[in-house]
Amino acid sequence: MRLRNKPWAEDYIKNHPTIVELDPYQRRGNWQSRFEQEQPLALEIGTGKGRFIDGMARQHPDMNFIGIERDKNVIVSAIDKLNDPDVTNATLIHENAKDLRDMFGENEIDRLYLNFSDPWPKSRHEKRRLTYYTFLEQYQNVLKDDGLVIMKTDNRQLFEYSLVSFSQFGMTLQDVKLDLHASDDETNIMTEYEEKFSQKGQVIYRCEASFSAKQS
Amino acid sequence: MRLRNKPWAEDYIKNHPTIVELDPYQRRGNWQSRFEQEQPLALEIGTGKGRFIDGMARQHPDMNFIGIERDKNVIVSAIDKLNDPDVTNATLIHENAKDLRDMFGENEIDRLYLNFSDPWPKSRHEKRRLTYYTFLEQYQNVLKDDGLVIMKTDNRQLFEYSLVSFSQFGMTLQDVKLDLHASDDETNIMTEYEEKFSQKGQVIYRCEASFSAKQS
Repeated sequence: MRLRNKPWAEDYIKNHPTIVELDPYQRRGNWQSRFEQEQPLALEIGTGKGRFIDGMARQHPDMNFIGIERDKNVIVSAIDKLNDPDVTNATLIHENAKDLRDMFGENEIDRLYLNFSDPWPKSRHEKRRLTYYTFLEQYQNVLKDDGLVIMKTDNRQLFEYSLVSFSQFGMTLQDVKLDLHASDDETNIMTEYEEKFSQKGQVIYRCEASFSAKQS
Repeated sequence: MRLRNKPWAEDYIKNHPTIVELDPYQRRGNWQSRFEQEQPLALEIGTGKGRFIDGMARQHPDMNFIGIERDKNVIVSAIDKLNDPDVTNATLIHENAKDLRDMFGENEIDRLYLNFSDPWPKSRHEKRRLTYYTFLEQYQNVLKDDGLVIMKTDNRQLFEYSLVSFSQFGMTLQDVKLDLHASDDETNIMTEYEEKFSQKGQVIYRCEASFSAKQS
């Protein structure tokens, strides 16, 4: 998502340390201390304007949420959404995460959300897709043994690629939806992308995958 | 596929022993002797009117094909298609196969095709779906270690179910297509169903899965 450059964005981020964790590397292994309550921790990679994390945090007060977004021009919108004293279970990170293991300890995360990630359609960019095996290695490390990777996308080729990549890495699919909005899941929190694309009649794909075998 | 009853069908089948193997149980472990050449063996479960097996046999003279169909009223159409001296690498079985292991030896099959299988949408009929784990146990037994299960369907719920079932059984997805006809695969042989449904604009799903890890 490319938005007009907002020269004030850097300062805006720094002026909201209660919403944005400004030194995420120092939090490694100790993220629970950032929140009011110690409870299951979900991480969203590519939070964008924050509609998903904001909706999830309000829907699930019994979980803590962290959203990573590298684009200063969009994370400011997420800050505005989460700037509400009612929301004490969500925080943001403004980083271009090279390796999640620098920011999170082993087994620190319960759920990892990949929402409408960049599809990088060209073969020579395969390594940049967030479901390439080098990313799965990171997810496996920071997720608990029974943790879940939960992916949503409108991009058919990325979803096809990701199902195969999960499988060949040895992950187990727990759930697959090939037309999410046909399933009438009222608990689904839509991202900005999701609303836009589904209004155009575009199918939304979703899956849950784990690094362990079948879950009870 | 339910067709009008053809009272002559049983006799028609018996009168074509060069096309239909009339004693498939006696062939167990020895199917190659039925064909002119010993070459990789593919099995289609639910051959219907035979368009797929007929097209595949002509496209792949370097493979042998067996098609199973329990409905006498449709298998007669498959007989007519294969009743051609040019096709020496395809044979039919008219049985309601309870257990493939009664008909095929261990590691006897190279590829197993599931084309537009009955979706059995009700939960209480899950056990009848051809990707329920009790069927996967049969496929694992009769397939070679590097053998493939290749599935096509237009039924979204059956495909979602099957991806998860394969995965939870420990199978590895080798390839997934969520809109087969968008991929412009000119080698794809359409079944009767496939042509009918895709003409209606229905998406066709396809995947390849193996019981071993990633293939070279």
